[in-house]
Amino acid sequence: MSLKNCMVAQSGGPTAAINASLAGVIDGVMKSEKYDTIYGSLNGITGILNNDLMNLSALMEKDEAYLHRLTVTPAMFLGSCRHKLPNYLDDDSSYVYIFKQFADYDIDAFFYIGGNDSMDTVLKLSEYGKRIGSPIRIIGIPKTIDNDLCETDHTPGFGSAAKYIASSLLEISHDTFIYAVKSVTIVEIMGRDAGWLTAAAALARNEYNKAPHLIYLPEVPFDKEDFLLDVKRLLFEQNNVIVAVSEGIRDASGNYISASEQSVDTFGHSQLSGVGKTLEFLVKEKLGVKVRSVEINVLQRCASHLASKTDLDEAFALGNKAVALSEEGVTASMVTMNRVSDNPYCIEYGYAEIKHIANEAKSVPLEWISDAGNDIKQPLLDYLAPLIQGEVDVTYQNGLPVYMNVSHLAKHQ
Amino acid sequence: MSLKNCMVAQSGGPTAAINASLAGVIDGVMKSEKYDTIYGSLNGITGILNNDLMNLSALMEKDEAYLHRLTVTPAMFLGSCRHKLPNYLDDDSSYVYIFKQFADYDIDAFFYIGGNDSMDTVLKLSEYGKRIGSPIRIIGIPKTIDNDLCETDHTPGFGSAAKYIASSLLEISHDTFIYAVKSVTIVEIMGRDAGWLTAAAALARNEYNKAPHLIYLPEVPFDKEDFLLDVKRLLFEQNNVIVAVSEGIRDASGNYISASEQSVDTFGHSQLSGVGKTLEFLVKEKLGVKVRSVEINVLQRCASHLASKTDLDEAFALGNKAVALSEEGVTASMVTMNRVSDNPYCIEYGYAEIKHIANEAKSVPLEWISDAGNDIKQPLLDYLAPLIQGEVDVTYQNGLPVYMNVSHLAKHQ
Repeated sequence: MSLKNCMVAQSGGPTAAINASLAGVIDGVMKSEKYDTIYGSLNGITGILNNDLMNLSALMEKDEAYLHRLTVTPAMFLGSCRHKLPNYLDDDSSYVYIFKQFADYDIDAFFYIGGNDSMDTVLKLSEYGKRIGSPIRIIGIPKTIDNDLCETDHTPGFGSAAKYIASSLLEISHDTFIYAVKSVTIVEIMGRDAGWLTAAAALARNEYNKAPHLIYLPEVPFDKEDFLLDVKRLLFEQNNVIVAVSEGIRDASGNYISASEQSVDTFGHSQLSGVGKTLEFLVKEKLGVKVRSVEINVLQRCASHLASKTDLDEAFALGNKAVALSEEGVTASMVTMNRVSDNPYCIEYGYAEIKHIANEAKSVPLEWISDAGNDIKQPLLDYLAPLIQGEVDVTYQNGLPVYMNVSHLAKHQ
Repeated sequence: MSLKNCMVAQSGGPTAAINASLAGVIDGVMKSEKYDTIYGSLNGITGILNNDLMNLSALMEKDEAYLHRLTVTPAMFLGSCRHKLPNYLDDDSSYVYIFKQFADYDIDAFFYIGGNDSMDTVLKLSEYGKRIGSPIRIIGIPKTIDNDLCETDHTPGFGSAAKYIASSLLEISHDTFIYAVKSVTIVEIMGRDAGWLTAAAALARNEYNKAPHLIYLPEVPFDKEDFLLDVKRLLFEQNNVIVAVSEGIRDASGNYISASEQSVDTFGHSQLSGVGKTLEFLVKEKLGVKVRSVEINVLQRCASHLASKTDLDEAFALGNKAVALSEEGVTASMVTMNRVSDNPYCIEYGYAEIKHIANEAKSVPLEWISDAGNDIKQPLLDYLAPLIQGEVDVTYQNGLPVYMNVSHLAKHQ
């Protein structure tokens, strides 16, 4: 029986671990007795539509160091997209073309590595494939720094972002403690709807550092007056107050906390300052204390030089698992992790049907947030701690990390 | 002859290398046949004034791992201050008390680790000491991420900040290239008056990455129209344009480029958005392209987990050198580095009289900036490259870097 091929793509927002999952898929295919070539579709699903494909097996054969180098490279080696397929009942032209491509390339399985929106694509492709009686496996591999995908204990990319946030908080604390004057530092962390990443800031606390002293997650309505009272109370007891706040905090009516629309620049545009800046102005105005805000933004999702080994190992293993499942005939599913225990940390790899996952989101449980809504509880710390363990072996050359050459994305440049 | 003691303090803004210089001083004193104890003054010169001193020799004796751990700890282990001594002719009370403290603690030499303002303190203490005929040595040890101290080829703290900037630019590039749509990314980097650190962003360029595609330093007047033309021209040729810009860029009249004072928030305060945000709004308004800004701010000066080994080794050596010089009787000086060659990279340690240094600043030479004022030239790259070489051995525990316990600073908390 002749060998079949596989295809893989990445989509959505980048993380420090998504290339580890890609490497896991490539590794799984290269070791498989059932499969021959693994093709990569550039810029997510659109690569299949534009016939922008790359022979990843041939690439990996050029140098055995590439697989590890790919594992530690930040963002998406295959590029990404934010393309949502239409409902095939409305317009099936994309679907017809995609499955024609699958046939032309002798594809047995298609792996899509991404977050919530990407799982929607997996769902749609699976349903269409089922409708036309196609045997082709469609499998999703999770990815997101937000940690909000359902059916899996946590998601690849989250552990590394959490490690980066916690390390940065510790370093910001050292930076803050040096002056013997009262000050407030507000650190704005990514996470519009789920507070998992902001909660990870608490991992910075140790025997000598108690910061962040306050933590505000989007799961709890934010009250400006309560916030000011929290800060004022702490300023009585100590000089430096450090606050970790999610970019997605909202008031009781559900409105995002950010600079009011009354603030307009010379171009006539409302200045959306972000939560950090808004709270900085608030503290300055109401408390009159020295205050600064730090917006960590893009660096928290692409700082591969500080990736979590646990995260990358799991991301790679999920890629392997996806290939193994497709060999067994599993389809319309996403590979998952289930936690057996916190200490010792132990997980199992499995899978769940995609219809339970696509377009669903998982928030931080309210019972893991303090009653006052300004800190987290021990069970959440116990959940988070294992995910940031271990450091990754990154090669440096001329003082900089060595990552995969992504000039193939530059042909769109 | 009985052994004398030394005292050391740190001041000004933090870097990832200032504790390496402190460790070098401690190491120099511990190995010296002339000196017994090294005392640290907490929060710069104010520690001497408030009798807030720490026996660093006793601390280091507790654990031989402490010296290396101190070397890699970010910010100031002894805390900092921004205290400027008055002219002693106007008011000599501080000076009298400081020299009394020196006498009480049997101090032979005082080392002050800091930037420009700190060298002003070294100058003043030296002049006062000379006036009263004191034999006590006053020696400055340089420190700043801005790299703007005169008489020294470069300054401790700069190399690590440069390594962080270059690594971050490379990672931001990977993050940017993933979408096949036109976009502009503006990265705002520290440096109000000197463009050394912003220039270091160019080190991110390699065989596949040409970003940052545009670099704007404060040494050259910034023109918004020219900037827009630069960006527009590049957008014809490629999808993603990444710009590195110093926070201190000014227009031809010398006004800082930032959100106009017309922008006012609900509290009635002008919103100082910073250069990155200002240029983001400008590009959005005038070019209508997808654009984002990234402000690296505090992380570039305290990210010790990505420090440059060259930087820390030199910072430590300068601490050693300061002790050696004081043994020889040198005073009223700052230890310096002189570059013998770029390739192979070779420097010599020396010293220069403090009167040539205090309150002076060193900018990027105009001949090292491109004629168009939007990039840097090869000699500047050759100057910068050696400074970011080598990685530091940081110990990790529970997924986080292990730094020195700074709870002694928290007694001010």
